[in-house]
Amino acid sequence: MKPDAAKNVKHTPLTPEDDIKFMKKALKQAEHALALGEVPIGCVIVYDKKVIGRGYNKRNTKKTALAHAEITAIAGACKKLGDWRLDGCTMYVTLEPCQMCSGAIVQSRVDRVVIGAANPKAGCAGSILNLLKVPQFNHQVEITNEVCAKESTEILQRFFKDLRIRNKETN
Amino acid sequence: MKPDAAKNVKHTPLTPEDDIKFMKKALKQAEHALALGEVPIGCVIVYDKKVIGRGYNKRNTKKTALAHAEITAIAGACKKLGDWRLDGCTMYVTLEPCQMCSGAIVQSRVDRVVIGAANPKAGCAGSILNLLKVPQFNHQVEITNEVCAKESTEILQRFFKDLRIRNKETN
Repeated sequence: MKPDAAKNVKHTPLTPEDDIKFMKKALKQAEHALALGEVPIGCVIVYDKKVIGRGYNKRNTKKTALAHAEITAIAGACKKLGDWRLDGCTMYVTLEPCQMCSGAIVQSRVDRVVIGAANPKAGCAGSILNLLKVPQFNHQVEITNEVCAKESTEILQRFFKDLRIRNKETN
Repeated sequence: MKPDAAKNVKHTPLTPEDDIKFMKKALKQAEHALALGEVPIGCVIVYDKKVIGRGYNKRNTKKTALAHAEITAIAGACKKLGDWRLDGCTMYVTLEPCQMCSGAIVQSRVDRVVIGAANPKAGCAGSILNLLKVPQFNHQVEITNEVCAKESTEILQRFFKDLRIRNKETN
C-alpha cells in the first residue's frame, strides 16, 4: 500500500457510521490497556477504510512516555505505508491527545483526528491548546469531537474508580 | 542507575564548560545524520554528568516522523533509567525542538533543555510557541539557548547547500 502522492487524493469518504465503527476499534485497544492496569486509552489509524495502525497506552509497562496509544499507532501506520507522511489517514483516539501526540500527528501529517472524550486538564487538540490547528505550522489537522464520548469516558472512570479502591486497600 | 525519587535531588551542577562539552557530543550525533543524507540534528541526554541517551535524525531512513533525534534519545534514556520519568536529566539538542519533541520532553519530565540553534520557522521551545513553559501543563522545563549555536547552524547550512547542488545536478 503506498501513500497518496498528492495530498488531495479522493478516498471513499468516511461516514458518521464509519467513525463510530472505527472508534469502537479504538475502544477495543483501550480495553487492552485496562487489562494491563494502564490508563485505558486506545487508538487506530485508518487509510482507505482499513485499519493500518493501532495502539494502546503502555507507559508503565514499557517504562517510557513514548508508549502512548497514538505514538504506537503512528509507528505501525508508517511501517505499513512505508512513508513518514500519513497523508490520507484518519486517526481515532478515545481521549484528546496530549502535547506530544498532537505534535506527532502534525509531524506525521495525519489528515483528520476523531476524538472520543475531551481532556480538559491536559488535552492539546482544543482544551489547553490546539496544536492541530496552529497557522504557523506547515500542516493543520481536521478534528471531529465526541464520537463515542460516553464509552470513552466510562472506561477511564472505571479505571480510576478501581485505582482508588486498590489504593484504599493498600493504605 | 535509578531516577531521582524526589524531583529536587541535588546532582553535581553542570557548568557552562559541561554544556559545551555535551553539545559537542550532540553535534557528533548530527554528523551521523549528515552521513546518512538526513537533516543533521543530534541530541544527547545527560544524567549525573553521564550521557544516558543519544540520537540523530533518521526520518527518511526509518520512514517515520518519530525518528527525530530527541525521541530516539528519550527512548534510550528511559531504557537506561528503567523509568518513563527523566527527572534529573538535561537534554542537549543542536536545533530547537519541534512540537512533537517539545511535547515528548514535557511528557518525559526532562529537567532542562540546552539548545544549539533556534528554529524560527518551526521551533516550539520559544520561536513559534514555547511548549516547555506552558503554565497549565504539569511540568515545565528550564531552557538554555545558543550553546555552540554557530556549529549547530553551520552543519545545517552545509547540508542544505549540498542538497541545493544535488538538486541542481539532477534537474
